[in-house]
Amino acid sequence: MSENPPDTSEPSPSAAPAQGDATPTTTSGVSRRRLFGLAGAGVALAGAGAAAGYGVAEASAGPATGVVPFRDTHQAGIVTPAQDRLHFVALDLSTTDKAAVQDLFKRWTDAAERMTSGGEVTVNGAVGLNPQSPPTDTGEALGLAPSSLTLTFGIGASLLTKLGLTDKRPPALIDLPRFTADQLEPARSGGDICIQACADDPQVGVHAIRNLVRMGFGTTEVRWSQLGFGRTSSTSTEQATARNLFGFKDGTNNLKAEEPALLDEHVWAQGADGSDWMAGGTYLVARRIRMHIEIWDRTSLDEQEKVIGRTKGEGAPLGAKAEFDTADFSAQGSDGEPVIPEDSHVRLASAQALRGVQILRRGYNFVDGSDGAGHLDAGLFFVAFVRDPGKQFVPMQRALARKDTLTEYIEHNGSAVFACPPGLSAPGSYWGQGLFT
Amino acid sequence: MSENPPDTSEPSPSAAPAQGDATPTTTSGVSRRRLFGLAGAGVALAGAGAAAGYGVAEASAGPATGVVPFRDTHQAGIVTPAQDRLHFVALDLSTTDKAAVQDLFKRWTDAAERMTSGGEVTVNGAVGLNPQSPPTDTGEALGLAPSSLTLTFGIGASLLTKLGLTDKRPPALIDLPRFTADQLEPARSGGDICIQACADDPQVGVHAIRNLVRMGFGTTEVRWSQLGFGRTSSTSTEQATARNLFGFKDGTNNLKAEEPALLDEHVWAQGADGSDWMAGGTYLVARRIRMHIEIWDRTSLDEQEKVIGRTKGEGAPLGAKAEFDTADFSAQGSDGEPVIPEDSHVRLASAQALRGVQILRRGYNFVDGSDGAGHLDAGLFFVAFVRDPGKQFVPMQRALARKDTLTEYIEHNGSAVFACPPGLSAPGSYWGQGLFT
Ligand code: HEM
Ligand code: HEM
Repeated sequence: MSENPPDTSEPSPSAAPAQGDATPTTTSGVSRRRLFGLAGAGVALAGAGAAAGYGVAEASAGPATGVVPFRDTHQAGIVTPAQDRLHFVALDLSTTDKAAVQDLFKRWTDAAERMTSGGEVTVNGAVGLNPQSPPTDTGEALGLAPSSLTLTFGIGASLLTKLGLTDKRPPALIDLPRFTADQLEPARSGGDICIQACADDPQVGVHAIRNLVRMGFGTTEVRWSQLGFGRTSSTSTEQATARNLFGFKDGTNNLKAEEPALLDEHVWAQGADGSDWMAGGTYLVARRIRMHIEIWDRTSLDEQEKVIGRTKGEGAPLGAKAEFDTADFSAQGSDGEPVIPEDSHVRLASAQALRGVQILRRGYNFVDGSDGAGHLDAGLFFVAFVRDPGKQFVPMQRALARKDTLTEYIEHNGSAVFACPPGLSAPGSYWGQGLFT
Repeated sequence: MSENPPDTSEPSPSAAPAQGDATPTTTSGVSRRRLFGLAGAGVALAGAGAAAGYGVAEASAGPATGVVPFRDTHQAGIVTPAQDRLHFVALDLSTTDKAAVQDLFKRWTDAAERMTSGGEVTVNGAVGLNPQSPPTDTGEALGLAPSSLTLTFGIGASLLTKLGLTDKRPPALIDLPRFTADQLEPARSGGDICIQACADDPQVGVHAIRNLVRMGFGTTEVRWSQLGFGRTSSTSTEQATARNLFGFKDGTNNLKAEEPALLDEHVWAQGADGSDWMAGGTYLVARRIRMHIEIWDRTSLDEQEKVIGRTKGEGAPLGAKAEFDTADFSAQGSDGEPVIPEDSHVRLASAQALRGVQILRRGYNFVDGSDGAGHLDAGLFFVAFVRDPGKQFVPMQRALARKDTLTEYIEHNGSAVFACPPGLSAPGSYWGQGLFT
């Protein structure tokens, strides 16, 4: 973190008087609690990871103590086994000052690396607890385990336009076409930047987004944000399949972390299209899909299973027994009809129907209060990672929007596409660096 | 559950043809998976608790396997050690038909007892999987542990008016006065009925509320609902204190389950006011409090601690060392000023300042997306249980609204009061029974 240039643009802490003067103090021989006892004298504590500005060392002994490495070939939060909770934010730039954005991206990277390793947000590498300054970290995740927090960063095409970087636009970063029955709301769509926080403890995800939003003050503002309370996908063969709000197992026939060749084929951008800075990255497609659960709940089990093309209990393809049995799309019932109906979701979305197209799904269930008409506002926040949205998501969603019986029970009301750069394996590299070099 | 009268008013499942004919089958010697194999023949399975209509027996081996007893002297979800997640719903009657409401309350009680014990929703005691009928349970909690699910039921004064039961109105069930700086939104306030679901797995809480809402179709509709992702209170000395979104430990000096005499004094209604049906019950006060986290985050640590009256790291009263040290409200600093400021939150809300008034707090953190003005819509969904809102919540909130410096950083935008009847210790007793007898 010491490779970060001196930072003068963080509005809250660094604007405060004594922050810059805080003398980094080593922890050796001094317990954090004792350090905290000295806080009145303006003590600060340098170092990544287990930094504890408030002097609280009580990391919870819960099950969710995992740390997902922040620096890797690819960004974390994509093929990382899907954590239980999501906080997703889309931000807009409130400036066109490229240097300010670049500086924010550097500070974000530093904070993201600290938070994902269980540490706190610092300023200039110092965890400050000068009583006359705002704390460098907002504090609500103190004492909580890292909880497998991942922070995944992406940029929208609109950012490139605003910063005069359209020559950097990868051909794959398209604007999605309008699909049949789309009911998109601008206030839930688009965005210059996205940050996806996934964690097994929601307070940890919310804390991370909140602190990043805070650091962006003056440079970015929140466009929309979405909490997800339960994963609807598995991204690893080690995970049991979770259920979505239609009560079906979701994520069974998903691309998984254990299939690197398929991921190279369908998820990781190869940079062959002239956008070298995206090689090893991927494209995130987000769709906020409201589910009309009241209508679904009045539908017979038989119909529900025909709509999906799988059984509700086991999650097996119709006509098969076990969840991971292969779907036999050619099988016919005694009535001569296909066992897995022509307009069923899994048939239309299958690689067989789409000439080999596959995507990595990583969505979450949501309930956002009620809709003012007596119903819960519930659904699926669909997140997919693909190598090329135009060649993968578009034909798939086009087929679903046109023919999928499921469409009668859902409504797409938010939509966005972001380019997620490759991972930051090089020490000192930062989010979005490829845009500025 | 067999004491429930035959139920013909459940709109979804019982409206379906073959449901009533389903022959209850015993599980003995038949595995759930094998039962499921027979589902095409319209198999149903009677029995509370671990019923598994979809034939899925894979209860997760996670940590949150707890079952909180549903039938007890008091309702669960009040002094029950605060679970991690909340789904709270306020419903309005869409009928004035007293018998329909009474019938719904019976069916709700049956479903609540089943779900809190880890079972599924049934109709007429049968877990139905007739393929021609909608499943009796929506299914998204299949395979999940009971997760300490509690369902707490309350009624608003408006219900009594609508059903012509105003003679049942307990004097303690008041309409709250307007407090200084209140910004209440009708769409987030009031309600004829409330159901509070708390659980350690959010999907379990959401599943419960969703199924109860579903069962109410035609009789009730959702007025507002609120998800909370992290508890901000402890209600048992066995729990560590969690943090709210201002980064402070919240719930330290709360009433706790281990103090029955104090609970009798401050939480449990005694029925001495002529409303015998409420003896052993309590009153729930809910306030949706938006927190201006951006402003808070720019405030110095010193100021934050003075606003609350406690330290941020440890959560100790100012001037003391440890979290559970007693606050010394008479202590003065070298400057002659009180160490715990006169306008600090804990002083104004303390029993000392309020002539002995205490409350049981059981609130949750929330983030509901963004506010359209570039900020997260975040805050505290405050829930308190008191014996008499007019004598406890009102003087406390009046003092806070007038003098509390915290008021500058928050905004109350939702409010409701509900009477929560006593527990259903008598077998066969049901929610709201006292209203109809
Ligand atoms: C609320 C909306 C949706 C629901 C409830 C839903 C539900 C499901 C379910 C239950 C499955 C079967 C289990 C599995 O393999 O994961 C499935 C499979 C799948 N879904 Fe969806 N889905 C939704 C939206 C979408 C969208 C928008 C897309 C992409 C445009 C999509 C793409 C897929 C794919 C590719 C599969 C795997 C198909 C196969 O077996 O090859 N889904 N979905
Ligand atoms: C967003 C709004 C609020 C925040 C952030 C907040 C925060 C806190 C914090 C940090 C404490 C100290 C730790 C503890 O003992 O729990 C506390 C104590 C307390 N709060 Fe609040 N609170 C809020 C609203 C309220 C409201 C609306 C009431 C009641 C009308 C209330 C009543 C109390 C009481 C009774 C105490 C214990 C005081 C004592 O030490 O005796 N709070 N609150």
